[in-house]
Amino acid sequence: MAGKPKTDALLDLDACTLRDRIASGALRAVQLAEAYLERVKEREPQVQAFAWHDPEFVMHQARELDRFRATGRAIGPLHGIPVALKDVIDTVRIPTENGTVLDQGRIPVTDAFVVAQLKKAGAIIMGKTVTTELAFLSPGKTVNPHDPAHTPGGSSSGSAAAVAAGMVPLAVGTQTGGSVIRPAAFCGVTGFKPSFGLIPRTGVLMQSHTLDTLGVFARTPADAALLADALAGYDALDKATSMDPHPRLLDTTLTEPPVKPTLAFVRPPGWADAEPQTRAAIEELAEALGEQAFWVDLPPAFNEAAALRERINFAEMAKYYYRYARQGLDKLAPVTREAIEKGSAITARDYLAALDWREVLHAGLGEIFERCDAIVTPAAPGPAPEGLGSTGNAIFNGLWTYVGTPSVTVPLLQAENGLPMGVQLCGPRSGDARLLRTARWLVGWAAQQDA
Amino acid sequence: MAGKPKTDALLDLDACTLRDRIASGALRAVQLAEAYLERVKEREPQVQAFAWHDPEFVMHQARELDRFRATGRAIGPLHGIPVALKDVIDTVRIPTENGTVLDQGRIPVTDAFVVAQLKKAGAIIMGKTVTTELAFLSPGKTVNPHDPAHTPGGSSSGSAAAVAAGMVPLAVGTQTGGSVIRPAAFCGVTGFKPSFGLIPRTGVLMQSHTLDTLGVFARTPADAALLADALAGYDALDKATSMDPHPRLLDTTLTEPPVKPTLAFVRPPGWADAEPQTRAAIEELAEALGEQAFWVDLPPAFNEAAALRERINFAEMAKYYYRYARQGLDKLAPVTREAIEKGSAITARDYLAALDWREVLHAGLGEIFERCDAIVTPAAPGPAPEGLGSTGNAIFNGLWTYVGTPSVTVPLLQAENGLPMGVQLCGPRSGDARLLRTARWLVGWAAQQDA
Repeated sequence: MAGKPKTDALLDLDACTLRDRIASGALRAVQLAEAYLERVKEREPQVQAFAWHDPEFVMHQARELDRFRATGRAIGPLHGIPVALKDVIDTVRIPTENGTVLDQGRIPVTDAFVVAQLKKAGAIIMGKTVTTELAFLSPGKTVNPHDPAHTPGGSSSGSAAAVAAGMVPLAVGTQTGGSVIRPAAFCGVTGFKPSFGLIPRTGVLMQSHTLDTLGVFARTPADAALLADALAGYDALDKATSMDPHPRLLDTTLTEPPVKPTLAFVRPPGWADAEPQTRAAIEELAEALGEQAFWVDLPPAFNEAAALRERINFAEMAKYYYRYARQGLDKLAPVTREAIEKGSAITARDYLAALDWREVLHAGLGEIFERCDAIVTPAAPGPAPEGLGSTGNAIFNGLWTYVGTPSVTVPLLQAENGLPMGVQLCGPRSGDARLLRTARWLVGWAAQQDA
Repeated sequence: MAGKPKTDALLDLDACTLRDRIASGALRAVQLAEAYLERVKEREPQVQAFAWHDPEFVMHQARELDRFRATGRAIGPLHGIPVALKDVIDTVRIPTENGTVLDQGRIPVTDAFVVAQLKKAGAIIMGKTVTTELAFLSPGKTVNPHDPAHTPGGSSSGSAAAVAAGMVPLAVGTQTGGSVIRPAAFCGVTGFKPSFGLIPRTGVLMQSHTLDTLGVFARTPADAALLADALAGYDALDKATSMDPHPRLLDTTLTEPPVKPTLAFVRPPGWADAEPQTRAAIEELAEALGEQAFWVDLPPAFNEAAALRERINFAEMAKYYYRYARQGLDKLAPVTREAIEKGSAITARDYLAALDWREVLHAGLGEIFERCDAIVTPAAPGPAPEGLGSTGNAIFNGLWTYVGTPSVTVPLLQAENGLPMGVQLCGPRSGDARLLRTARWLVGWAAQQDA
């Protein structure tokens, strides 16, 4: 048992530090993998974050990476860092079941774009994490690592829980409504949903081509930047991506803001129904920030955002999940079935109008973004609700997915029951790097307040 | 009357030659404008190609252009060349009524992107040409210049007729189904519908963002290239356009094909219903081309193309023409009304499926395009039908608009009644320059056969 404290200390390090230690030769991939596997062994029986996990496969990758390292060749930015992948992301020769019995035993013959990127970057694929059914609302087996009687949130339940339980330093998920930010907030980790188009989606289950966005889970904004940098890229098969040069997220995230950041606090649609403790915590935060915070109202048109986003989501879902509906409608959860049915009835005209509104609302945000570094809202109406039958409410997340702007949640608040609550920061499209820098600044500022 | 033959000779020249004469100083814009105005005076009372035409405005532009020329500064590629514009293209301070009483007296406050391009290129705006109602199927006042009892085709009726009657050397139109190729064929001129995305559409009536394509009318493929070169560009407001370097259409069109072109003759959906004289003429053409021609069948999936294209057209039309329907449904032609009603009932799922099929069919064409320089089909089932109540059948044009590939029609055939018939050549996406070169080659080859 002499090694126990050492392993724990290793697991306390953030991904950026681990990367540096591996790069310097102070740490081997095998050592790190062993430490994390130990933690999985400990926590997974309760947390149930993984849909697929094979310790031998992890060790095999770690040994190969150490061997490569020993040749003296240049190593990737994630060399030896374990990463978990939501089970809607295709992995070659590894089951990818999309959270549905209809895809039981499905084994992709090619890696998703991001998996290829991760392999190039030297990451260790730690396993596939539990998703809700087809990345929609019907929960999987995962529980909240802070309290197993509470939901971890969804749809990227396993990715959020795996990072929160310390079973991986980094994980990848997807968000179509609030599937990255919500579980990250409920599980008390950093969640980052980049600008629409930053991370290519080829090889990822398509629910809505207009909304689906890959996102990441990490312990800190810098770690989120490290992972997102490795995933971003241009993909000719994903028309949402572009050949524009990619932001160097981590480089910017690690710099100090040139002037003290200004944060715009909004009371978004749904604010009135949020828990009083959530509203109070956000209001206290604004107050503590003093001159660096101001309150601003969203125009009434934003009250339609949730319905417009849902219209696009359901209409496109009806199209992309048609094959599932045909294959076995009775094997889908009622909530999934209903959404497909509702989506099938949406007219093209209404659907196209919802696409147009997206640009109108986005333009409306422009005025606010001109006056601040980020918009601040709660990440969720409260902490993770009790019970495992629902993944909670995404009311504060959908708007940003709809307009395609980046958002990040940082676990700065604590509920009365001790569960974590997230503060969501939102930036303008393509403002991902500055948004992460602002989030890192806020985390540092909050730590100083506590001290 | 001594000047008459001289004017006629001037009007016989193609646009490329006119451009060279003006550039060399041998011809002034005012001279050319006067000659064309004379022709308009002669032919317009019968042909009725113009929705708006003001001789004084034409002369004003010509005088300004000559004045500019006299300063010795570099002139644009269309300096002094009259161009007519379909009345769905916004022109600042000039009425743009979109062929509907609902837009009577509408005067845009900004030029369409292509109008700004034309002005930069030194073109003379000769006037606005008659469009069918909202660029759909209900005819305007224009007649076929070859026989006033016959339709000129539509929806770019006036642009095709104006070039055919010699009232302008060049004109701009739009195609959502067959609105460039069909009227060009019926009127016996060259019509060119470029690859989707080549020419920006900002400031042009939107019927279907997926299908609407700007196209040109001219006497020769080289003239079409001259005009299309001036119109093409990148427009941040039209997402269909890209920052890729633009093809130099005219430069390529004027070169000789490096090897003898090979033409793939297909019997497209609708072939069996085409007039026997049309089928016979195309078959004779294939035979005359000998080893340079081969016949190939389109897979059965192509039989769905017309319905899939129409589905997208109607669904998007229901969305974009919603304001017209609200403003005065009773003031729209029954055919327009019905399409909007049909379009309003199309579900988003079916609409999205039709968008997907486009890529499937496009991929199916790839195999044919690999083996030929161009695909050849009739431009229309026959010559311009008698009567002015319909603009004729676009069955042979819609497929290429749907898949976004370029097509060009050249007036190589003559019907039994003396009316012109067009041969349509189709190339792969972005293969516009080579397609126009092949068309120019075919025109030359046909002239040799006749000689």
